Amino acid sequence: MDESEAEAVLVPEAALTRFCAACFEAVGVPAGDARTAAANLVEADLRGVHSHGVMRLPIYLQRLAAGAIDPRPVIRVVRETPTSLVLDGGNGLGQVVGMAAMRLVIEKARADGGACVFASVRNSNHYGAAAYYAEMAVPHGMIGISTTIGGINHMVPWGGAEAMLGNNPFAIAMPAGTEPPVVLDMACSVAARGKIIVAAKEGRSIPADWAVGPDGQPTTDAARALEGFVQPVGGPKGYALTLVMGLLSTMLSGAGFGTEVTHMYDDMERPQNIGHLMGVLPVGLFEDEASYRARMDKAIQEVRGVRRADGVDRVFLPGEREAIAMAKRRLAGIPVGAGVLAELRTLGAQYGVALA
Amino acid sequence: MDESEAEAVLVPEAALTRFCAACFEAVGVPAGDARTAAANLVEADLRGVHSHGVMRLPIYLQRLAAGAIDPRPVIRVVRETPTSLVLDGGNGLGQVVGMAAMRLVIEKARADGGACVFASVRNSNHYGAAAYYAEMAVPHGMIGISTTIGGINHMVPWGGAEAMLGNNPFAIAMPAGTEPPVVLDMACSVAARGKIIVAAKEGRSIPADWAVGPDGQPTTDAARALEGFVQPVGGPKGYALTLVMGLLSTMLSGAGFGTEVTHMYDDMERPQNIGHLMGVLPVGLFEDEASYRARMDKAIQEVRGVRRADGVDRVFLPGEREAIAMAKRRLAGIPVGAGVLAELRTLGAQYGVALA
Repeated sequence: MDESEAEAVLVPEAALTRFCAACFEAVGVPAGDARTAAANLVEADLRGVHSHGVMRLPIYLQRLAAGAIDPRPVIRVVRETPTSLVLDGGNGLGQVVGMAAMRLVIEKARADGGACVFASVRNSNHYGAAAYYAEMAVPHGMIGISTTIGGINHMVPWGGAEAMLGNNPFAIAMPAGTEPPVVLDMACSVAARGKIIVAAKEGRSIPADWAVGPDGQPTTDAARALEGFVQPVGGPKGYALTLVMGLLSTMLSGAGFGTEVTHMYDDMERPQNIGHLMGVLPVGLFEDEASYRARMDKAIQEVRGVRRADGVDRVFLPGEREAIAMAKRRLAGIPVGAGVLAELRTLGAQYGVALA
Repeated sequence: MDESEAEAVLVPEAALTRFCAACFEAVGVPAGDARTAAANLVEADLRGVHSHGVMRLPIYLQRLAAGAIDPRPVIRVVRETPTSLVLDGGNGLGQVVGMAAMRLVIEKARADGGACVFASVRNSNHYGAAAYYAEMAVPHGMIGISTTIGGINHMVPWGGAEAMLGNNPFAIAMPAGTEPPVVLDMACSVAARGKIIVAAKEGRSIPADWAVGPDGQPTTDAARALEGFVQPVGGPKGYALTLVMGLLSTMLSGAGFGTEVTHMYDDMERPQNIGHLMGVLPVGLFEDEASYRARMDKAIQEVRGVRRADGVDRVFLPGEREAIAMAKRRLAGIPVGAGVLAELRTLGAQYGVALA
């Protein structure tokens, strides 16, 4: 439980999903898409990834209401081969476009004996947690890959002092056998900008590797860091990583990059033209599926069973904490922090939707 | 120029390549494969990536001479679909197997109107710089992807105190227009183990985030760090990254993982059964190639042209430093450090090959 959950109220999954869907409908999103987007947001909270959960509902609704996101997008396949797709998302909600894209990729990958398939998506929006899309491939016995460009430039090229890069996340999900899938989902900064906001509010300093000030120099002053830029993991490695994930997400379909990227929170006028890349590798094309699954289980159990450092109770596989959180919260409810809850109640009042 | 180049001798590319090829031939590698492997090693030195250059020649020769690598491997396609390949490398040199695999991937990706193609490789060996294979796709207008499992377990799962993971590198190369390609090539540790060896020799302490001791606790004592494990970039992020790159490199073809990974330097008995994943996304399947190249150039120029932090002369794109070094060294020769040069001369004496 992190700081945001300290004074949290437990809200049942179904109630939270109904609430989000009703809010989306209130700004013109059709019922089916509203449920799709709501389920995507709530799953992030179920997994404990609150930064991509219902705390994003206000900005999505604001952009929808302002006409910066189209509630009824026309999603079109603009180019297609047996192993590739290019999708225009019609400026729809990133969750709706992203899930449509991954469904098409999976469908194509299953046809005619199977294929490795990738889709490049343009004219989309902030799509939330990258893992969601990669994980869609897992029940089909496929490795899923998902990358996106971020909706705000708040990273600098290594050595730079001007934001030109998003904190571009990517996810890879690999099915296993009886073990849960292994799910890598990471953005390219050392720490989320949200943590710096909290430190600034509380007047705390931050570690020297979290951020640079507006002059491009490292700072421990949280307020100054907020005028500056978040730092990439591993210095030049994280810079290279976020740059390449951004290019992969945009260059194959003409989505926005660099100076073309508008600010998700500050610019309510222009569509963002966010890009994603989605791909799948069907396991069965390469290896007997049962052998693969058995070997994945063995690898997972070896990693989990490794001798532990002093004071460590358990070694987790990537995605395992999230799977455990989800199972627990499906039963116990989702902790929603006081600040987010107040925002949701304000939205509810605005759109005539009760959170109950 | 790093510390290893301080007392370096400049050796012409052709002479260094001839020398390496002759050494490979002396332990039974056929002339064509010997040239292939030599060119691969020397290119790493040309690019300034000495850790994957000729300094690896001694261990490769030692493993070949001991029969732990087969100088005349039978490389077989054991499974194939229009978008996938599984290769058994016949326990050949990683460079020979890796290049054969990427050539097959590119060939298949060009056939019948083009396809996204991936190959899983087993029964290979340490293949050197991951970028080499990803870059092979670039002249064909394709994005190249290459991952491998490392030849030594010297990373711990996050929270663990026992080596179970390699420092698994991966590379992604993206063609551009008039600009050089963007090439991401990274391993998953904060710092290379070689830097810790140097610090220990010189009695210097190391930064606290480079390594943990044998108890899994961070240490600034370089000698103790060498008894322990290198730390992943970004803590749990780097752990997740190296784990997933390792799984992608091995699980689709039955290559070794975890406890199955033998030690490249300490175990001269058993073949390593190293695995790789190679893949390509042909740009033309997704986007008009000229548009893509123009947009890549624009993106590259924006990133390079960004306002710089104080004291920074130039912002580099990933792979750009290496491309500049290569152009320079092709003319001026390759700086080979005194220690490596002495090793090469010893090998030369052993195999009756002159470095001239």
